[in-house]
Formats: sequence, C-alpha cells, structure tokens
Amino acid sequence: MNQTVQTDASTGTPVSGKAHSTADLRRIRSNPNHWYPVAWSRELKPGKTIGTRYAGTPIALVRPTEGAIFALEDRCAHRQVPLSKGKVCGQSVQCCYHGWAYGRSGRCIDVPYLGKGKLPNGVRTFPCREQDGLIFIFPGDPDKADTVPLAPRLARVGDPAYKTRSFGREVKCHYSFMHENLMDMNHQFMHMKQMGQMRPRFLGQEREPGLVEARYSFARTGGKQPLGEALIFGERRDASEKFQHRDVMTIRTEYPYQTLRIQTGDEDPVMDLWIVYVPQDAEELTNRTFGLLSVKRPKVPGVLELAWPFLVAFTERIFAEDREIVELEQKAWRELGGDHNVEVFPVINALRGLLAECGIAPAAAANA
Amino acid sequence: MNQTVQTDASTGTPVSGKAHSTADLRRIRSNPNHWYPVAWSRELKPGKTIGTRYAGTPIALVRPTEGAIFALEDRCAHRQVPLSKGKVCGQSVQCCYHGWAYGRSGRCIDVPYLGKGKLPNGVRTFPCREQDGLIFIFPGDPDKADTVPLAPRLARVGDPAYKTRSFGREVKCHYSFMHENLMDMNHQFMHMKQMGQMRPRFLGQEREPGLVEARYSFARTGGKQPLGEALIFGERRDASEKFQHRDVMTIRTEYPYQTLRIQTGDEDPVMDLWIVYVPQDAEELTNRTFGLLSVKRPKVPGVLELAWPFLVAFTERIFAEDREIVELEQKAWRELGGDHNVEVFPVINALRGLLAECGIAPAAAANA
Amino acid sequence: MNQTVQTDASTGTPVSGKAHSTADLRRIRSNPNHWYPVAWSRELKPGKTIGTRYAGTPIALVRPTEGAIFALEDRCAHRQVPLSKGKVCGQSVQCCYHGWAYGRSGRCIDVPYLGKGKLPNGVRTFPCREQDGLIFIFPGDPDKADTVPLAPRLARVGDPAYKTRSFGREVKCHYSFMHENLMDMNHQFMHMKQMGQMRPRFLGQEREPGLVEARYSFARTGGKQPLGEALIFGERRDASEKFQHRDVMTIRTEYPYQTLRIQTGDEDPVMDLWIVYVPQDAEELTNRTFGLLSVKRPKVPGVLELAWPFLVAFTERIFAEDREIVELEQKAWRELGGDHNVEVFPVINALRGLLAECGIAPAAAANA
Repeated sequence: MNQTVQTDASTGTPVSGKAHSTADLRRIRSNPNHWYPVAWSRELKPGKTIGTRYAGTPIALVRPTEGAIFALEDRCAHRQVPLSKGKVCGQSVQCCYHGWAYGRSGRCIDVPYLGKGKLPNGVRTFPCREQDGLIFIFPGDPDKADTVPLAPRLARVGDPAYKTRSFGREVKCHYSFMHENLMDMNHQFMHMKQMGQMRPRFLGQEREPGLVEARYSFARTGGKQPLGEALIFGERRDASEKFQHRDVMTIRTEYPYQTLRIQTGDEDPVMDLWIVYVPQDAEELTNRTFGLLSVKRPKVPGVLELAWPFLVAFTERIFAEDREIVELEQKAWRELGGDHNVEVFPVINALRGLLAECGIAPAAAANA
Repeated sequence: MNQTVQTDASTGTPVSGKAHSTADLRRIRSNPNHWYPVAWSRELKPGKTIGTRYAGTPIALVRPTEGAIFALEDRCAHRQVPLSKGKVCGQSVQCCYHGWAYGRSGRCIDVPYLGKGKLPNGVRTFPCREQDGLIFIFPGDPDKADTVPLAPRLARVGDPAYKTRSFGREVKCHYSFMHENLMDMNHQFMHMKQMGQMRPRFLGQEREPGLVEARYSFARTGGKQPLGEALIFGERRDASEKFQHRDVMTIRTEYPYQTLRIQTGDEDPVMDLWIVYVPQDAEELTNRTFGLLSVKRPKVPGVLELAWPFLVAFTERIFAEDREIVELEQKAWRELGGDHNVEVFPVINALRGLLAECGIAPAAAANA
Repeated sequence: MNQTVQTDASTGTPVSGKAHSTADLRRIRSNPNHWYPVAWSRELKPGKTIGTRYAGTPIALVRPTEGAIFALEDRCAHRQVPLSKGKVCGQSVQCCYHGWAYGRSGRCIDVPYLGKGKLPNGVRTFPCREQDGLIFIFPGDPDKADTVPLAPRLARVGDPAYKTRSFGREVKCHYSFMHENLMDMNHQFMHMKQMGQMRPRFLGQEREPGLVEARYSFARTGGKQPLGEALIFGERRDASEKFQHRDVMTIRTEYPYQTLRIQTGDEDPVMDLWIVYVPQDAEELTNRTFGLLSVKRPKVPGVLELAWPFLVAFTERIFAEDREIVELEQKAWRELGGDHNVEVFPVINALRGLLAECGIAPAAAANA
C-alpha cells in the first residue's frame, strides 16, 4: 500500500513535491475478482458470437438461440485464431478455420477430421452474467464469482420514474484517471463552456473498505444555465446562495464501479449515474467505458422524451471534454515515464489509496 | 532441430498439450541459400530501377536498356539512400543524391567530384535470374547460386494447354503460417461460403529431405458447386461418393516453394499452382506472396477466356479469406509472445519439422 | 571528440571503409545552451497561448494582451496536462482542467479551491525572446542566456532592399542530416530536374571554433536556367566558363544555425538564407525547420512581387526533394542501427566534427 497517499488523505496536507510512491498508480492492474461488463446485451444477437476484451484477454461471448450466454477465451486451442469469428451450433461454437468445436464448458467436443478419443484439451471459460442491458464476465478466480456481489440494479434501469441512457466508448488511458476525473468536481472549471461558471463546495468525504465517497454542492456564479442541466436539475430561478446550494452531488467509487447521484434533501435523486472503466489492453492503459445515466422524469409527461436529444448531445460534449483531458494525462505519463501528479485535494488522495489497495501491484519480478 | 515436431510427424500421435519446442517456428528465418522472387518482370521497365526487399535487405533491381538485369544492395555506399531512386546509365546506376555510380559488379565507378584514384568501395550484389515472368535473386552465399536449382518451369507458364494467372500481395505473417494454411486442407471449412461444403479425405503423405507432400481427395457434402471451381475441376453432376473422390489434390512444400496440383488418374493436372512466400522485414513476420496458377484449357476454345474474370474474382476471395486468418494467427502469436499451436494433424507436424530443419534458427546469442 | 572525422577533415583523404567513430553522430543531442526558435510570431495571438516543443520538452508560449511573451514548461504541476490548452488571464495562464494559475515566473499563484498559504510549487520557465518574426527560447542553463548571442539580424529581415520568405516544416530526421545536406553542394545533382545541370566547383573551406564554412561557384553545363533561379541570380546569357563561375556561394554552419549567401565580388548578396533545425522529440530524430530566405530586389520595382509565387513554388519543390532524401537517410540509419556513412568530402567531415564537438554526446551510462 501507498504510504504517501494514505498520509495525504488522512491529514489533508497538500503535497508540494513530486509523489514518489512505492508503486506507480498507473501501473496498478485492475482486480480481476470482480464482475466487469464487456459488452452491451444489444450487441450480441441470438445464434451469434462476438469478440470482446478484458485487460488483454480476448473473450468470445456466445448467445445460443436457446439458453443463457457463455464466455470463452477467444482463441481456438488449435491455432489461436478468434472463436468469435466462428459459428454457433446449438450450445457450442465452431472455429472458423478448421472447424474445431467447443461447448459451454470450454471443452473441445469435435475436431471434424479426428477420432473422438483423440480430442485435445479445450479453452478457458469465464463466469458470465447478463443484467440491465450489460453482459458481465468474472475474469478472476471462478470459484469466487458467486460470492462477489453485483448491485441488484445499476443506476435506475427499469424504474419507470426514470429514463436511462447507456453510453461509453474506448478511452486511451488507465482507469484510475477516469475515477479521479469524475470524483474531483473542481474540474467543473473545464466544462465552463458547456455548463457556465459553477462554484463547487466540498461538503465532506467517506472512506470505508472498498469505498471512497465525496459530497459537493454547487452555486452558479456566472453564465446561463444550460438546457441539459436544467433538464436534470430543474430550472433554478432563485440565484441566492442559500437556494443554489440545496442540491447535493454524491460521487462514490465502490471498487471497481463509480456512481454519481444528485438529490435534494431526502428526495429521490434527480440523476443517478453508474459507470465503470474496463481495461482493454494487457498494460491497462486503455479502457472501455460503460455508463448508465438515469434521469428522473419531470411531472409533465413527455417533456423528457422531447428534450432527450438535447440531453444526449449535452452529455456527449461533456464526455468528449473529459475524454480529451484524461488522454492528455496518459500521454504526459508516457512522456514522463511515470506518475508525477501533485495532488492537493484530500479526497482524491483517498481515492488513489483505494485504487492502489484494491488493485493488483505489478509483480516484483516484473519490475526487476 | 525440433525433436517434438519430429516425433509427432513420425508417429502421427496428436499432441494434447502446448508444444514447447527448442525454437519457436515463427522465429525460424528463411534459408537465404535459395532463389527467391522479389518482383514481377513486368514491374521493371528497360532503363529503369526499382526497389524491392528480402528479409529486411533492400534490393535495387536494374534493367539496363541492353543486357540482363542485375541486383544491388539498395543503399548507396555514401549515405545509404536507395539506389533504386537513381538513374540507369548504360550498365550502371547513379545514386540520385550526389551522383555516385555503381556498375553491374557493385563496384563504385564514379564520384563526380572525386578523382578516379580515390574511389571508395562499392555495394553488395546478388545473383539474379529472370524466369517465367519473375525476377529471382539469391540472397545467400553467391558461390552456391549456380548449384542450387530452380525448377525449369514454374506451374505451367508458357504451356499453350494452360492459362496462367499471376497473383499475390503482402501478407502480414511469418511464411510458415502460409505453408501450413495451404497444406492443411481441413481448412476447406473456412471457405464454405465460397466453395460449399466439401469433405476432404486425407490419402497419405511423403517426407523426403527438403520435401513434405500431402494428398487429398474431396467429396461435396452440401451446397452448390461454385462457378470458379467448376471451371477448374470440370462440372460434377454425379454426386456418388465414388466419382466425387476421383480427383487427387497433391500439395507439396519443396523448400522454400509450395505447389498444389489437382489431377484425375494419370491425366495432366487440371490445376497446377506454384507459390512462394518471400519474407519482407528483418524479423520475417511479413511476406510477399508470389503465385502462379495454371488452369488447363477446356476442350471448347474460348470458354476459359470468357470465364477468366469470374475465376479471378473467385480466387481473390479465397486468397482474401486465407490472408485474414493467417494474419490473425500472427496477431495471436504476438499477443501470446510465441507459438502455442496444438497441432494434431501429422502431415502439418511433418511440415513444421521440415521448415524448422531447412530454415535458420535464431542465433543462440540473439536469444540470450 | 571524433578523431576519425578530424583526421579526414585535415587531410582530405577519402575514407574507404565504414566510419567507426566513438559516438554515432545521429545520437548527438543538440546543445541546449543556445537560442532556438520554437514558433513564428504570427502563430501566437495576443491573449493566447500555444504549445510547442524542443527536444521532447513541451513548451507553452504565452502572449498576454499587454507585455512581453513568456515561456513555461507545458505541463501543469498538478496533473501534467498542457497549460497551452488553458486561458491567459493578465500576466498568468490558468490550466484548463482544475484552474491552477501560473505567473510569468512559473510560480503557482492560484488554486481556486485551496488556501493561498498552501499553494504548491510551480513550473519551469525558459528565457524567451522575439526577433525577426520568430519566438526563441533558451532551453539550457538560464544563467547563460544573456551571454549567448543571437545574430542582431537574421537573413535580411527588415531590410527594404530585400524581400524575405519564411518557410519550414517538420522533417523526420536528426538535425545533422540537414546541415550536411545543405553544405554538400554536390547534391545539386539531385535537383537537376528543378535546376538543370549545374557543376559545382569547391573553392575552399574555413574551420573555426563553432564554425565551418564552404565556398562554391557554379557552372551551368546543360539544361535551361529555371525561372526561380533567374530571379535570384539574375539571368545569365553568357555561357563562357569565366562568367559562369562569377557568383560565390558561401555556406556556413555557425552552431546551431546555418546560413547560405550568394554574392558577386564585394556586392551585397543576391540571396541570404538563415536556417535552423530544431529537434522535436526527445531522441532528436525529427526536427522542425525554421528558414528565412531573403532575395535582393531587382532594379525594376515590382518584378520580385510579380515573380514571388513562382519563387515560392520553386523553393518548395527544392525543399520537398531535400526533405525526402534526408528522411530516407534517417530511415536507413534506423534499419542499419547506426551511421554507416562513408564520407569522402573533407568539408562534410569537418562539419561532422563540428556538430559532434558542439553537441552533447549521449551519457556513457545511456550506452552501457
């Protein structure tokens, strides 16, 4: 564990030199003993297979015409070509090259030109689950899959009081940059063109095993409230400080997921976001983002549907700005050969500690 | 030499684990003491020079307006820029940059701004030959060039009973994947869309020094015979097993070349293919394919000419499918950091043994 | 220092083997204790900041609406994102991400969400100067900046008797190839299509500390004088050798700059070029070229303005040919893993010695 970061987080003292931690946070691998989404359900049609990826491991997802989906390592045992280029036959998938077939268990069940007694070994499988429009796999120890929970509902998918947007794409950076980006609301500064001038007020933080939480309120200090925001928060006519700060934004990293909720007092949240950043390459320096953004329907029916295209465009612009900046951070990391961040904001140092603690440090051997 | 592969080849026993051979087959370099085509004759006009490549060595081919072609290392001795960007003057080529000139022997014969007595050394040359529309060089020990044979005729080029198509392009994989692809006819499975369902029957193999041969027959088990195939094999109306298996396909790797012939009994082959995969980069992980495909002319004159465009399109589609899959194999090799193939087909293990035996293992020093 | 090169330069004896010098010239880093242009003045508008680069170091240039420009390391101390994406506020620049602000001295003067007493350190600055339409920085030891001179006038910028063209772009090669290209006028051979046949005559060389000079005259031996050249040199009707050689071309590398002047006797030069090749990446295998080409106005007013577009096109074609060949040299260097040049021209060996002597050899440690 990273002593420097812990100390910062506990004392809140800003660091004025370069952080020389024992392990570079951008080299910490994601912990595979969690459920990670690897595709949207809509991407995988019945009777088809698609190829996807987790941290450099290629994965073939298979949806038989009947029965649940399953996930295999996406390399034929024979010549390592992707099984996801093959054909789904009943409860098996047949490699496109020489027709080797693999069942749900990963076992090789047929080589068309070989006696059944001589069949070679099969391929690795992954526990697989489908929930709220996402396909999840458990890339770690399969025996742990059943004991590791996944929230029973992601954002407010399926709740008729909300409308949910799914979004995301590949971002060329380590997942830790994504967590830090969302949790540090001082980066509202960057979205000024989209959101106008907003002053965040930090209300406090929580640190529990596997969890860091930050709470903020906001005051508009200039500029016009954008339509996208008005749709989410409701229109704010009263500019007095007291009313402006009434909404509370709660951002949480519950490893490895992140959530952001906006609510007024004890009311249901007006916005509820669930998001996760799934490493793509073996070095985990790119991630595919899967986000579910639920917005509470206003009292007047149909308003949200009408406004939806504007809300989509608004969130896309925000996401594009965030993507650009985290990719620039990753680029600087490459050029500098490591993490030189000087973090002064205690909750971000707490978050860094969490990510280092829950993730997997590169093996001592790999550093030698 | 690779003991594992030899054993497999001799016993025919399928391997059920990962093949841990002493040297990775995809790291075996091609043996330079053979004749390799590096360009089509039509690419090199009289009085011109073009640049080509063998295993990372750049080669300038020069065709004077009179006299035979010659081949030089494609780097001026002065500043290493390509001589193939220069000018052909009589029996010499002049570098484009400062005008240094080199003769057929590679000797520097002129530096425009230097006394003749002070001329620097020249550049390396390669034995060079032109046959059947291809330009060959001998990249190895020049003293061996005359003793290493090249078949007197490639495919059936020049035989009026045949029409020959030349084809090929760069493929991003080690040449060994190409040899294995063609020789393992169980990969007909992959061409099902193009060829319909064909069941190959393995008839036997030969293994001699420098040579592996596989023989197959085929039965159509479903789908319609495609036009391209009908043109090559003749139309098959009789679907009985007996007649279906009458054509024999013989595939040979006669290092470093490969041939494929289809014939019925003792008749002349209906198809005769000669093909070679010339490494392009120094690591030999890309190759340029040069193929000559000769098809026997049917009795009715003009039919083959009429059908030619369809046959070209058909073979291009087959070649494109093969190219895609071997490039995926190479990609998997890179990701896995080596060859993890589990080969169960004895003739392919014999072929792997041949390629390892005839090629050049990376130097022990280079592995250390 | 490179003994081999020195010897060559002093004796003028052509080298007939490969030059094995103690350090590869293409690995010699440029000496940072000089003034290097990093942008054209016109690129940086008032109230704006742009990002540029010297040898792998990103640099933010800032032009406040009032006061002189300044130059900071282009990485926010917080998260290393480019300050050049930020906003200029008075005499400071504010990072686009979380709004950290830096003054002219590089000191961090504001973090919007942090008390003033807790401000972290700032970023590095570079001495900065603007002259003749170029923005220069001094990337080395700032204490030396004032003692290192920059010519009071570059080419003939601002001289009403001349018209000056600024040009240049990124070239993918080590700066040493650029110096050698321009100084070795035997490469006129390469520009034959643009310039016709010109025979250079080497008149002599000078070697002083920090300086190498070569002098040439030229005779047209064939082809028509191109319009571009006629505009610079004046039309030459008299083809006798005596008159042809009357113009003297003087090319100088005064480290790290290069100049080329053409003059007849003691007259003012008809052409005066100032040029420098600024390394872009940390390995210095690319450079951005900044050139100022001044052409003396002919006696008839307006002629040069009319002819300018032709002169621009002519010089662009010449520059494109040079760029192509030096990039091919760099490519060969990469493929061969080092410099294999066999230089026979003494002044070029003198130049190589100068560049090795004035530049920074890679640290012994980096070679081990």
